[in-house]
Amino acid sequence: MTNNIGLEEILKGIGPLDGEWIEKAKERTAQLVMPARALGRLHEISERLCGIQKTLKPSINHKAILVMAGDHGVVDEGVSAYPQEVTGAMVQTFLRGGAGINAISRHVGAEVWVVDMGIIPELKSDELDERNRLLIRKLARGTSSLAKGPATTRKAAEEAIITGFQLATDLFRKGVEILGTGDMGIGNTTPSAAIGAVITGTGLDKMVGRGTGVDDEGLEKKKEAIQQGIEINQPNSKDGLDVLSKVGGFEIGGIAGCILAGAYHSRPVVIDGFISTAGALVAHALCPAVTDYIFAGHCSEEPGHRAMLEHLVLEPILDLGMRLGEGTGGALAMTIMEAAVWVFNNVLTFEEAGVADKD
Amino acid sequence: MTNNIGLEEILKGIGPLDGEWIEKAKERTAQLVMPARALGRLHEISERLCGIQKTLKPSINHKAILVMAGDHGVVDEGVSAYPQEVTGAMVQTFLRGGAGINAISRHVGAEVWVVDMGIIPELKSDELDERNRLLIRKLARGTSSLAKGPATTRKAAEEAIITGFQLATDLFRKGVEILGTGDMGIGNTTPSAAIGAVITGTGLDKMVGRGTGVDDEGLEKKKEAIQQGIEINQPNSKDGLDVLSKVGGFEIGGIAGCILAGAYHSRPVVIDGFISTAGALVAHALCPAVTDYIFAGHCSEEPGHRAMLEHLVLEPILDLGMRLGEGTGGALAMTIMEAAVWVFNNVLTFEEAGVADKD
Repeated sequence: MTNNIGLEEILKGIGPLDGEWIEKAKERTAQLVMPARALGRLHEISERLCGIQKTLKPSINHKAILVMAGDHGVVDEGVSAYPQEVTGAMVQTFLRGGAGINAISRHVGAEVWVVDMGIIPELKSDELDERNRLLIRKLARGTSSLAKGPATTRKAAEEAIITGFQLATDLFRKGVEILGTGDMGIGNTTPSAAIGAVITGTGLDKMVGRGTGVDDEGLEKKKEAIQQGIEINQPNSKDGLDVLSKVGGFEIGGIAGCILAGAYHSRPVVIDGFISTAGALVAHALCPAVTDYIFAGHCSEEPGHRAMLEHLVLEPILDLGMRLGEGTGGALAMTIMEAAVWVFNNVLTFEEAGVADKD
Repeated sequence: MTNNIGLEEILKGIGPLDGEWIEKAKERTAQLVMPARALGRLHEISERLCGIQKTLKPSINHKAILVMAGDHGVVDEGVSAYPQEVTGAMVQTFLRGGAGINAISRHVGAEVWVVDMGIIPELKSDELDERNRLLIRKLARGTSSLAKGPATTRKAAEEAIITGFQLATDLFRKGVEILGTGDMGIGNTTPSAAIGAVITGTGLDKMVGRGTGVDDEGLEKKKEAIQQGIEINQPNSKDGLDVLSKVGGFEIGGIAGCILAGAYHSRPVVIDGFISTAGALVAHALCPAVTDYIFAGHCSEEPGHRAMLEHLVLEPILDLGMRLGEGTGGALAMTIMEAAVWVFNNVLTFEEAGVADKD
């Protein structure tokens, strides 16, 4: 049972992917009636899914996205182009089915669950059921400004991770075969860039971008806020929980928890862009083996994203100049991953097709 | 009517895309409840579809792939890793639904039609109907070796184009909203590289790759055959029909015809990889305006593909190291394009969502 599991126990329960099923899957790929590995990355995707699911009949039919929402005290420093009220308004838009993540998820056949991890407004919810997909797990009404001190406590950061872990675990128990992580939080490219800078060691000029679209002045304020936050808080790059609590956010912790859950239960998790990957950096700092279970949905237009993915040694599936967040890039990549599964499961072998192989 | 249309008349009937609908579409994109153009290339895709379909309610629900098959006399020069019999055997695999293109097309919801444009074996068929999707339009039992003289006659090359045009026209009349081009033909990276080298002016070292997987010796033979073919035939790079007849193939001509049909009827056509793009180069040499109606599905692993796409000023949607052909890259890109349409048609505006915009 994982109902009262602690972080230590979660981390102990995660191991690297067993290579044996991947090897078996590669043998099947080699028999498919096409030149050797002619579908490139589609083969890598299907084979890694075989490894994660320990099967030669991979399935990602049952898909879900967990959109983690949180507010950020650092917005007071003038780091965002949008007012903070937009976080709550967008959460309501998700629940109405009217946002980008809803459209893409309907297309790819994924459920969307929205989680209040720590937004300012008090929205109503029910428990995990089919009618009301807002889950209230509010840790606080937004973080404190990371530019002036720790964004939150170590205890709350840990709770955010455990919360994400539990939510993802619940979905896996309901039969979800692949989970996408998403985010909503005005200002959250600021904590994400701070996490990226601290954990990857990349300079702020390369790591900090315009997010939803700040102007030159806003971009300078954003860099200053992050610089100040790192100096004041001195986050320890080797301690994911320390980084998360000092310069992170509740939704980022929730995403890290989802990723740990994927690795713990051996289920694939697709991360989205800049914010989700900041969550992956936290999870990876806690437990490097998590990357075996992560698929990078896309490369964001946000300039620091590439450096984050390189730190994790993850190659993005899509590169379409997207920078919306909400989980959109991960959801979209799921349809490519599903194509990979279709190929793996349904293409005939040379022998079945009666076609002469190269040899 | 287009039942007895000639090439001259087709070319006269093609004009550049009307920019007015694209501008209207951009206005709608600007109202969607997300930061400005935050879904990057998805917006460009949906807006161009609006331009092509002259609507603000684009639809690519009804999808079809035309897989054009042909054999190539140049295989006698030792340019391919597979025996020529594989062309016909793969056509039969398509009809059994067991190849890569079948798996991906089922996933994205596209019909697959297979056309014998000039393969060596005599396979059976019916007319265009739902049960038997092999269409026999055989122009010859394979081309002659381009290394020794013209691959075919100017008349047969023109017939190949008209045939592709008519087949695509039939599908558009049946309600197909987006057409993908595919190919099958052992040896057909050789004529495609020859077309690419002649039309784009790229050197053979950059244009010629390993296709289905020839070894170093095969690669040298391939370059020599192409070099010899260009020297003997002296194709005129400004005359698409001359290039197609001297160093091309029947399936490549059929693909060029599909592309002309898309432009003529103002319907979107998604090209696949190296061979389909050679067809696009021929169509573009005949009528430069065709590129307005073409979407480049992916960038192939075949090294010369990038230079072809640059010549056409087309940016590929996917880049997944694929090099199978059959139409797989174009079919896979259709699901991304459909996501773009979902976003365009279904995301609420700032006003509808009651969310404050940046301004």
